Amino acid sequence: MVGRDQAAPPADQLAAMDLTDAVQNHAFSDRVLIRSIVGRPDGGAGLAGQRVRAAGWVRTGREQGKGTFAFLELNDGSCPANLQVIVDAGVAVLSKLVATGTCVVVDGILKVPPEGTRQRIELRVEKVVHIGEVDPAKYPIPKTKLTLEFLRDHLHLRSRTNTIAAIARIRNALAFATHSFFQEHHFLYVHTPILTTSDCEGAGEMFQVTTLISEAEKLEKELIKNPPPSEADIEAARQLVSERGEAVKQLKAAKASKADIAASVAELNKAKESLSKLEERSKLKPGIPQKDGKIDYTQDFFARQAFLTVSGQLQVETYACAVSNVYTFGPTFRAEHSHTSRHLAEFWMVEPEIAFADLQDDMSCAEAYVKYMCKWLLEKCLDDMEFMAKNYDKGCIDRLRMVASTPFVRISYTEAVELLEEAVRGGKKFENEVEWGIDLASEHERYLTEVKFQKPVIVYNYPKGIKAFYMRLNDDLKTVAAMDVLVPKVGNYRDGAAS
Amino acid sequence: MVGRDQAAPPADQLAAMDLTDAVQNHAFSDRVLIRSIVGRPDGGAGLAGQRVRAAGWVRTGREQGKGTFAFLELNDGSCPANLQVIVDAGVAVLSKLVATGTCVVVDGILKVPPEGTRQRIELRVEKVVHIGEVDPAKYPIPKTKLTLEFLRDHLHLRSRTNTIAAIARIRNALAFATHSFFQEHHFLYVHTPILTTSDCEGAGEMFQVTTLISEAEKLEKELIKNPPPSEADIEAARQLVSERGEAVKQLKAAKASKADIAASVAELNKAKESLSKLEERSKLKPGIPQKDGKIDYTQDFFARQAFLTVSGQLQVETYACAVSNVYTFGPTFRAEHSHTSRHLAEFWMVEPEIAFADLQDDMSCAEAYVKYMCKWLLEKCLDDMEFMAKNYDKGCIDRLRMVASTPFVRISYTEAVELLEEAVRGGKKFENEVEWGIDLASEHERYLTEVKFQKPVIVYNYPKGIKAFYMRLNDDLKTVAAMDVLVPKVGNYRDGAAS
Repeated sequence: MVGRDQAAPPADQLAAMDLTDAVQNHAFSDRVLIRSIVGRPDGGAGLAGQRVRAAGWVRTGREQGKGTFAFLELNDGSCPANLQVIVDAGVAVLSKLVATGTCVVVDGILKVPPEGTRQRIELRVEKVVHIGEVDPAKYPIPKTKLTLEFLRDHLHLRSRTNTIAAIARIRNALAFATHSFFQEHHFLYVHTPILTTSDCEGAGEMFQVTTLISEAEKLEKELIKNPPPSEADIEAARQLVSERGEAVKQLKAAKASKADIAASVAELNKAKESLSKLEERSKLKPGIPQKDGKIDYTQDFFARQAFLTVSGQLQVETYACAVSNVYTFGPTFRAEHSHTSRHLAEFWMVEPEIAFADLQDDMSCAEAYVKYMCKWLLEKCLDDMEFMAKNYDKGCIDRLRMVASTPFVRISYTEAVELLEEAVRGGKKFENEVEWGIDLASEHERYLTEVKFQKPVIVYNYPKGIKAFYMRLNDDLKTVAAMDVLVPKVGNYRDGAAS
Repeated sequence: MVGRDQAAPPADQLAAMDLTDAVQNHAFSDRVLIRSIVGRPDGGAGLAGQRVRAAGWVRTGREQGKGTFAFLELNDGSCPANLQVIVDAGVAVLSKLVATGTCVVVDGILKVPPEGTRQRIELRVEKVVHIGEVDPAKYPIPKTKLTLEFLRDHLHLRSRTNTIAAIARIRNALAFATHSFFQEHHFLYVHTPILTTSDCEGAGEMFQVTTLISEAEKLEKELIKNPPPSEADIEAARQLVSERGEAVKQLKAAKASKADIAASVAELNKAKESLSKLEERSKLKPGIPQKDGKIDYTQDFFARQAFLTVSGQLQVETYACAVSNVYTFGPTFRAEHSHTSRHLAEFWMVEPEIAFADLQDDMSCAEAYVKYMCKWLLEKCLDDMEFMAKNYDKGCIDRLRMVASTPFVRISYTEAVELLEEAVRGGKKFENEVEWGIDLASEHERYLTEVKFQKPVIVYNYPKGIKAFYMRLNDDLKTVAAMDVLVPKVGNYRDGAAS
């Protein structure tokens, strides 16, 4: 074992590493990552004989040999594969260890299992350091197959399933690959504001951000605890002010001592202050503040109406016009009441901007980015993708390879419409009629990329009428310099069972 | 020149690159990055004789030699340094080029300037490809010094100043360094939700997210355009229903033909439907929907009250308990009415979580992270940091070096309080009284890190009363396993002039 202040090598260096190397501890923990054992090209066999501390959650466990020992499949989320752990009855109370979901930390020796077993290495436990017990009767995520729908009701535990953990690793990989791609190509990452007063897309489906309601509720509670003054209270205070004023007048008329007059004036001022406080409080009204029959946004947090951004594009463009290559990568919000697999209220979006580039450069960037993502997954997440291929989408790995290695077709919108019209003449039926000027429907895009070309297709120069106001008008005055990348099968979602 | 599909090498490889190398084009543009010329260790001298296309914005320009040529300081944001560009009067109308802010794309030959000039290389222009003119009378960001306050009123142009561009590059570097650090140490990046129904910190200073107000406003407009039915309208509709009902009855009594009865029933049903629509519309009330005197959140977008997150911690912890090492890095929101340099309504926050680790591991992680950030800035952003040292904070580079290379002091809260009490006995005056149990004030933290130790200090094991509910209670039952990293000078903000 090396010291804990030394980091394990990144996954892509594991393959190159000397298989006789000592196993390496996690940098900020006294355990090893299970991936650094079973993720090696030799499945961990080269580590036989080494003492390690492993930790994780039991995926499946069973007592064997009439209760003399237990097998545990231990997973720590560092990779899809489990570490097989063997505990003898003399070391721990086996029944406390075997329930799915049990959290364990164990010290032991790595050994090559007997011939004929699937594992290339297993851990023989010498000491159980920690057990976080699970009551199988209450644990809601058993080892049986569970639907994604079911898991949605157990958000706090679903990351312990193979499916959600694999998605977490894949999403992590794609997020970091996104940053790596743009950083390698000298784009600056800009955090554009989430809170905004402008509606970039003009679609109007924005979430409003406000403190008016909570402030009104706070005030309402306050007014119940401490009611506003009544008219009578204010009248009494007014009366007091006039009495005190009269007293001052009389003292002055009677040429009283300066001290007496000063004291009387002080009393008058106190009465005035008290009146003004009461008048101020009497103006407090429950409810959202109004002015001229409308909500008074000058009283909102930002002194105006504010929303969640639907796109950082307008802001990041100001950076593109100063530092030339930029991208955003952050959450975006749409208050759309569309419940489809393509609509989300909250999602993360990448928005690159390149100064001094034309549409061809833009297409090159998009193609390079998509290929980079695919290659990254094939290199760093093949085990998770294999899980996905096995359980959700048979062709996903082949598709990643195809997209990573095939030059994308580039056709203008006008050419795309011609190809679709040609298909219609050839007998192809579309639900949505094809003619120049339409927004391509999903069925049209799928025809182009899945049937006609069977590879990724970039369609560019769209009619100005169907694209946003900020697109550059081409010299034909009919089309704008916009492009969309179409990839086979994207947008097709198959629900299934998670394990 | 190499093909445009080849990426320029990352900055840290530039130093190692053969200085006789051809200059490399930007991957997705037909220009070169100015940084790939002037950012070389030889200042670009080794590129003399090469033809390049450069592009950017004029920082300063001036006509010289009685208008026979012009000098332009061109900046493209790829580095703080400008490229000196020389344009002869025969090539372009010089007066159109020299205004600060002018956008230009130029082709030319790199030449070594005459002895005695500051530049190591300059670009002699052969062709001006593009000019985006600027009217100096209207351009709000002249080359004079401008305050940060002033720039706040010109957000869309301020990224063209040296200061804001440098901050953009530094922020970009720190964001990517953050990902690199955690990825190298096998942490998974998790996008925790921004929209939430839980108040993690319990401070209550949350922004509410709602569509109730916009829906109410939409309805209000709709009701003005298309007013709800009056009582009389409804009464008339009711009357019609009863008349039609009567008609049906009479036809039936008169044993009319089936067809006549059916027609009459159809008329009755139409009248009923029309009444029910009117009744439905009469229920529409302007304003935010209420129920039992309270806002009816079942009609809000998520059918409940929703807020912007103040921390992704509770959500990311569920991932830590499944995949063991995770971090978030995303925007966070606080509706605090504190207008200090330490309070923001929107900011990006990093939240790491390590399973199977103790507080010592946590401190090791924090120290390693802070050191990594400092080293990254020294390696990748030294030119920008030099700009900051010259213009804003003389000691910033020395401080980065110190933090990067000095082991952090680790003291318990109890020890920290003892040191502060010792200082008080020695005559040190604090505004806030020191005693066990207090939350350390900024002046206390600064004493420890700036006076007592003069290096970064980690204070750990705080009294449970001053930390959040989710902290682990230590065995002494008085303190919790929390720690804060204190770094000299952090939180001290010096306003200044931007250029």
